[in-house]
Amino acid sequence: MVSATTDERLASAADAKLTVTDGKAPLSKDEQLALIRVNLAEFMNPEIIEKVIDEGRHPRIYWGTATTGRPHCGYLVPGLKIGQLLAAGCHVVILLADIHAFLDNLKSSVELVEYRAKYYRWAITNMLEALGVPTEKLEFVLGSSYQKSPAYIMDVYKLASVVSEHDAKKAGAEIVKQSDNAPLSGLLYPILQVLDEEYLKVDAQFGGLDQRKLFTAAKEWLPKLGYKERAHIMNPMVPGLQGSKMSSSDPDSKIDLLDPPEVVTRKIKKAEAAPKVSEGNGLIAFTEFVLLPAASLRGGDFRVNRDRDGLEPLIYTDIAQLRADYENDVLTPQLLKPAISTALNAILAPIQAAYQASSEWQEITTKAYPAEDKKKKQKKVKGKGSRYPGAGKEGGPDGKTDGAVDTPPQ
Amino acid sequence: MVSATTDERLASAADAKLTVTDGKAPLSKDEQLALIRVNLAEFMNPEIIEKVIDEGRHPRIYWGTATTGRPHCGYLVPGLKIGQLLAAGCHVVILLADIHAFLDNLKSSVELVEYRAKYYRWAITNMLEALGVPTEKLEFVLGSSYQKSPAYIMDVYKLASVVSEHDAKKAGAEIVKQSDNAPLSGLLYPILQVLDEEYLKVDAQFGGLDQRKLFTAAKEWLPKLGYKERAHIMNPMVPGLQGSKMSSSDPDSKIDLLDPPEVVTRKIKKAEAAPKVSEGNGLIAFTEFVLLPAASLRGGDFRVNRDRDGLEPLIYTDIAQLRADYENDVLTPQLLKPAISTALNAILAPIQAAYQASSEWQEITTKAYPAEDKKKKQKKVKGKGSRYPGAGKEGGPDGKTDGAVDTPPQ
Repeated sequence: MVSATTDERLASAADAKLTVTDGKAPLSKDEQLALIRVNLAEFMNPEIIEKVIDEGRHPRIYWGTATTGRPHCGYLVPGLKIGQLLAAGCHVVILLADIHAFLDNLKSSVELVEYRAKYYRWAITNMLEALGVPTEKLEFVLGSSYQKSPAYIMDVYKLASVVSEHDAKKAGAEIVKQSDNAPLSGLLYPILQVLDEEYLKVDAQFGGLDQRKLFTAAKEWLPKLGYKERAHIMNPMVPGLQGSKMSSSDPDSKIDLLDPPEVVTRKIKKAEAAPKVSEGNGLIAFTEFVLLPAASLRGGDFRVNRDRDGLEPLIYTDIAQLRADYENDVLTPQLLKPAISTALNAILAPIQAAYQASSEWQEITTKAYPAEDKKKKQKKVKGKGSRYPGAGKEGGPDGKTDGAVDTPPQ
Repeated sequence: MVSATTDERLASAADAKLTVTDGKAPLSKDEQLALIRVNLAEFMNPEIIEKVIDEGRHPRIYWGTATTGRPHCGYLVPGLKIGQLLAAGCHVVILLADIHAFLDNLKSSVELVEYRAKYYRWAITNMLEALGVPTEKLEFVLGSSYQKSPAYIMDVYKLASVVSEHDAKKAGAEIVKQSDNAPLSGLLYPILQVLDEEYLKVDAQFGGLDQRKLFTAAKEWLPKLGYKERAHIMNPMVPGLQGSKMSSSDPDSKIDLLDPPEVVTRKIKKAEAAPKVSEGNGLIAFTEFVLLPAASLRGGDFRVNRDRDGLEPLIYTDIAQLRADYENDVLTPQLLKPAISTALNAILAPIQAAYQASSEWQEITTKAYPAEDKKKKQKKVKGKGSRYPGAGKEGGPDGKTDGAVDTPPQ
């Protein structure tokens, strides 16, 4: 995992000095670009985006996710960047890679994958709404809606004819499991992901720094088919709250978007966090990449309550000061953890309220993740309280209908 | 190149004792199977074909060819087997792999590839008619008519997910150029060729012995997607008249189906043929795999005129006797060459007559191979007479319309 240092970042939330609640006045080009750059590890070919803004268009930017396990709080990291992109006036296309999800587990039924894509749409939309960003320029596209089309597949064949096995392997080196016995699809995925930029008609692709080799390949490969080169926006790799990247396959290693406040508090309390060590610290990273920018989007700050010690709260709008305080042990893990729980629960509250209010989302959850429900029911209660609490318990009164995705993979 | 010895072959033309001109009486199952087996290097899972015959169906068998360079006399080798399959009551599907041809040279236009597919259809149909076999169970399918369909591409994705890079490489080892710098498409082609068996709804695939690893993979891979295993019929690898496989990219190394008799005679006269050495001898191989079976299909024999020496002609219905005579120098290269020219010209004559009679075929030829026409015109006449004479000179009076293929690749 690459942990970005402050130096590597192009801008910080404080530099951008922008909030969604600033009012309705349109942002200047510089303000838009500053908001796009917040917390990035790298921005390849920014001139492509600048030109789009100069032309008076809304930069169209895509982010892709395979619709497999339940989106957890780790999704708030790209979620915040997507929120900033929306706040900066970008048109954000979220590719729900349902075909990839299906290929990831051929035993899963087409229906299951369809339900999961719907779940992702509900979860991501509500996550972004919870951040208070405008979502009218948020668009979801199912991979299956175009990745099986004759034009697309002809381009897959063509690109596979001009890209060497070596280059395909290099492009996917950090994102696809590689070995001689790895499935051939791993070499095909970079081809697909590069073509997605053209078929989604975007100006830029956004992803983690682990996508860098693929993004570099995209710049080289698309012109081979006569397509234009896109810009690439990269988030740094952010350690999870446990000190490792949160995984949706291990329920104990993640905080679900629907975990109730007490569960969130308990999981954060259990998180590893060495005093005075801020680098590679999952709690600091989460604060930097989620909680501070989320506060900034609202024009607020990140507060650490010290009532227990009879002291004024610590107030942060900037990660540098927070890091300094943590390294000096002014901000101890014991102080930081409850502050994180409070801030995270505040973000999750409207998501969970939306869930409670939507019988449709609840129904989809049961259909999308039946195994987890089953597992949860079968799992014995352990004394340590480390079991995964899951979600989707009570049915709400009201269905929301605009979250449906209609084109299932076949 | 694998040169089959007589021992390796499953049956010879003489064993089959069958001719198309025997009459209209339907062949027995044993007669059908004997004709299918003539000259084969290997027949994997013959029980699949036997079952089809037992069920009273016509075995459906596919052979594929990329529609690139002009089909030359080397095509008579699979052509004879296809002729035997048709004579044995099989339904033969010829896959005109236009997408593969297009990918083989991305600079060629879609129109060019379309014309070449049409040229192949004209040439192959007339080649088979020239052999005197019934062609009503001959079917042409363009790869582009289904290889871009959503169902097919979903299966390409699926198969790529369950087949390892290693296994894909192994399957294509003898038919795809392999190196780290080889295009990725080389690893994709085995996937496509295996799926073709399912999408063409065949009982068997026919190809050269160089396809063996791919055919073995097909047996393993199709059941992974729940599809049934097919039988596989393999011709031995046959050396070309020059002692190496004839190539359509080097005009001097091949005899075109439309080469006039005097050019055929001259090219065969120039062919390498060591006296008394029958193994690896292109002339003997061509006699064994084309001329003898073609004679057999007509109920005739292969004759070597010895008027020059005041002797009776040598008459062969069997390669064993011919080989023995050649090894003993009874049948010298000087005697064999004119006999081959005569027999080959007799096969080519009706093809060329059909060409002369079809202004449509002639027109397609000019459009399908414009570079050759151009090259021919630009080429200086060499004293040695080794220039490629080409075809498509005189326009005929009459158009034939049923050879058209309608679905171009996109």
